Amino acid sequence: MTDLFAVLAYGEISAFYRLAEEAKLSPTVRGKVAVAKMAAAEMEHFKRLEAALSARGADIFEVMAPFVRALDAYHASTDPSTWLESMVKFYVGDGIAADFYREIAGVLSPDVAEVVRDVLAETGHSEFVVDEVRRAVAASRSERDRLTLWGRRLLGEAITQAQYVMAQRDELTELVLAATGDLNGIATLFERMQASHAERMSVLGL
Amino acid sequence: MTDLFAVLAYGEISAFYRLAEEAKLSPTVRGKVAVAKMAAAEMEHFKRLEAALSARGADIFEVMAPFVRALDAYHASTDPSTWLESMVKFYVGDGIAADFYREIAGVLSPDVAEVVRDVLAETGHSEFVVDEVRRAVAASRSERDRLTLWGRRLLGEAITQAQYVMAQRDELTELVLAATGDLNGIATLFERMQASHAERMSVLGL
Repeated sequence: MTDLFAVLAYGEISAFYRLAEEAKLSPTVRGKVAVAKMAAAEMEHFKRLEAALSARGADIFEVMAPFVRALDAYHASTDPSTWLESMVKFYVGDGIAADFYREIAGVLSPDVAEVVRDVLAETGHSEFVVDEVRRAVAASRSERDRLTLWGRRLLGEAITQAQYVMAQRDELTELVLAATGDLNGIATLFERMQASHAERMSVLGL
Repeated sequence: MTDLFAVLAYGEISAFYRLAEEAKLSPTVRGKVAVAKMAAAEMEHFKRLEAALSARGADIFEVMAPFVRALDAYHASTDPSTWLESMVKFYVGDGIAADFYREIAGVLSPDVAEVVRDVLAETGHSEFVVDEVRRAVAASRSERDRLTLWGRRLLGEAITQAQYVMAQRDELTELVLAATGDLNGIATLFERMQASHAERMSVLGL
């Protein structure tokens, strides 16, 4: 499961730096603190993955290297220009990760599943985001329309980069195939992820 | 001890964001990871202070407000332009904080002293910095000269902002006076801090 841990580990690092970067858009110290706490939680996850990889004799920097490009590309193509776009991105990203875990959990060995569950569990910081976004979109129709498109773009880019990663890494492709049965299964997996993305958007009032 | 906890808490938040910002200068993923871990440790400290303040009935955002200007000014006036300058800044800043703790520990009540010790203890990430800096300055005389001046500036700015904060906050002034005896005591405190700063610089090869 080196590839799985490695992609998650680089995901935590890049999420950490994105959160720290995007928090600059926060209009309040309160917002900055909330985001810094989310970022610190990502690093706790990273340390868990680092320990799991090192217990398997893998060098984390070496095994993360193949995933740098796709994850950096995802973040570069979804660079928020407002604080609300950042908030939606945190929330949607967390949700997609949690969905992905639920999809593959059944085919993981118990020790691997435990690590993955710990690091992909929803971070519990979502309430902060939900409140901020719901209030803003209730007050402005144009904000709502803009964030709705933004949410769609986030999912689209995530799927694009996930496909790119899977095309390159056999271990991950086999994992997803094992979880879904076959190529049809992968198509329905993407449909399920789209459905639960739509539910999350509606929680945000979008 | 509201003021003491509050200034430390805002210090953790601003250190967190500075670390995250400065890590962008890191030439390697390894450097970025080391810095992200330091930043996450700052947030653990922040949470400890938040809990201590909230146990005393204080709102952390309200009590931090008076310290925002001085700490932001310190960071703005010591904005590193290279990765090595960042590294020296982490190391020196950690050291100054630890010195400050040792100076005031004797006059704190045991429960306050425990919190302060936990959050000001050297973060243990220093070895990473020492290795990077020593290697660079051994290889380049001009780098060594530049970083020596940089280190002096860091201490000077820290003392300037500390004096500004003390002039505004009676509680902190009284704390330092209690620890040092009188105004002469404060002068010798600054001398001791300068001496231990010089020792730290020599550990870095500066």
